[in-house]
Amino acid sequence: MKTRDRILAQSLALFNEDGAPAVTTNRIAADLGMSPGNLYYHFKNKQQIVEHLLRRFDDVLAPFANAADSVHELDDLWLALHLLFENIHAYRFVYRDADYLMREYPALAPRLHRMTQAQLAAMRRIYLALSQRGVMRASEQEVELLALHTVLVITCWLSFSRLVPEALGTQNDSGRAAYHVLTLLGPYLEDDARPYLVYLTHKYLK
Amino acid sequence: MKTRDRILAQSLALFNEDGAPAVTTNRIAADLGMSPGNLYYHFKNKQQIVEHLLRRFDDVLAPFANAADSVHELDDLWLALHLLFENIHAYRFVYRDADYLMREYPALAPRLHRMTQAQLAAMRRIYLALSQRGVMRASEQEVELLALHTVLVITCWLSFSRLVPEALGTQNDSGRAAYHVLTLLGPYLEDDARPYLVYLTHKYLK
Repeated sequence: MKTRDRILAQSLALFNEDGAPAVTTNRIAADLGMSPGNLYYHFKNKQQIVEHLLRRFDDVLAPFANAADSVHELDDLWLALHLLFENIHAYRFVYRDADYLMREYPALAPRLHRMTQAQLAAMRRIYLALSQRGVMRASEQEVELLALHTVLVITCWLSFSRLVPEALGTQNDSGRAAYHVLTLLGPYLEDDARPYLVYLTHKYLK
Repeated sequence: MKTRDRILAQSLALFNEDGAPAVTTNRIAADLGMSPGNLYYHFKNKQQIVEHLLRRFDDVLAPFANAADSVHELDDLWLALHLLFENIHAYRFVYRDADYLMREYPALAPRLHRMTQAQLAAMRRIYLALSQRGVMRASEQEVELLALHTVLVITCWLSFSRLVPEALGTQNDSGRAAYHVLTLLGPYLEDDARPYLVYLTHKYLK
């Protein structure tokens, strides 16, 4: 691995593990057996490291934004969300420490806003497509609210599950997280689409 | 104000403004024109300050936990949620920095877990009461999921609204936050209860 990639990989691991506020560039360099000067040669400060990781996170989320065209049934959506939660878990410091990151590095806020808007747009397209296919039935305004609630749950799931560990588990369980997003759709599903949600409920709630 | 209360008030203001990770006891003392020694006489470390603030937050949330008995209609719930969001905003560092707080002070995690469980229990009771009164219609399992989604939105609203400032506003707007919680109930409302939600939609979405 190139030095640059090693620095990013180690930074990601430390940010995820100890929280972005607690990790200094000196710590990252020390953990890599590298001098701070060598690290600064590649990234002149912590902000640059965060910026690069945020860009990579944005890249791994891109497939989800394009998933709308391939989500035809409820199980397609479950799979797309499952993969999305895997990616969020891999970069879990981003949403968890979003407040710190935007406060400390205001220049990064527009990207986070854009990423959230892209997810809202993707969810809107997915729900409209599912409505057109007769999987669910929802008005335009309901689609709008559903998209908002969905992205809120996606964004906050990992943080929230640490507040109710008994009920939701603190472990990474992307399948269960994806199921919980689908339960938002419960009242909007047409009869043909219900059995899959019942199946998931048996799988994750028992 | 007693010195002890002045320290807590100043700590709360700084935690809310700059984030709990960034605020040291030296900074709190300096802002009060107090020697660190004087502060330590009252609180031996930052954890003790956080602990006291968390206890006060818990106290101000207590009325909501008991609101179930007085929530008879949808507008009662809107009002109870409005007041709840006011209190959360006054102690906004707690949910925003929850991850940091539990990581840094593991002894505080049980209280945060208990507080979240108490809110889940309160929402369950409220939704069951509203179902019995014919305001909404939901199965026991739907009430369970609704309670979970409601508490997730309550807990994460302030953090999430910073990710979509155009749509939700970054300002403190407890009325709008309360409205967004009520929209979760949309599909479960009986016809008589709908006009109030329509009224709120006109008020907050236009």
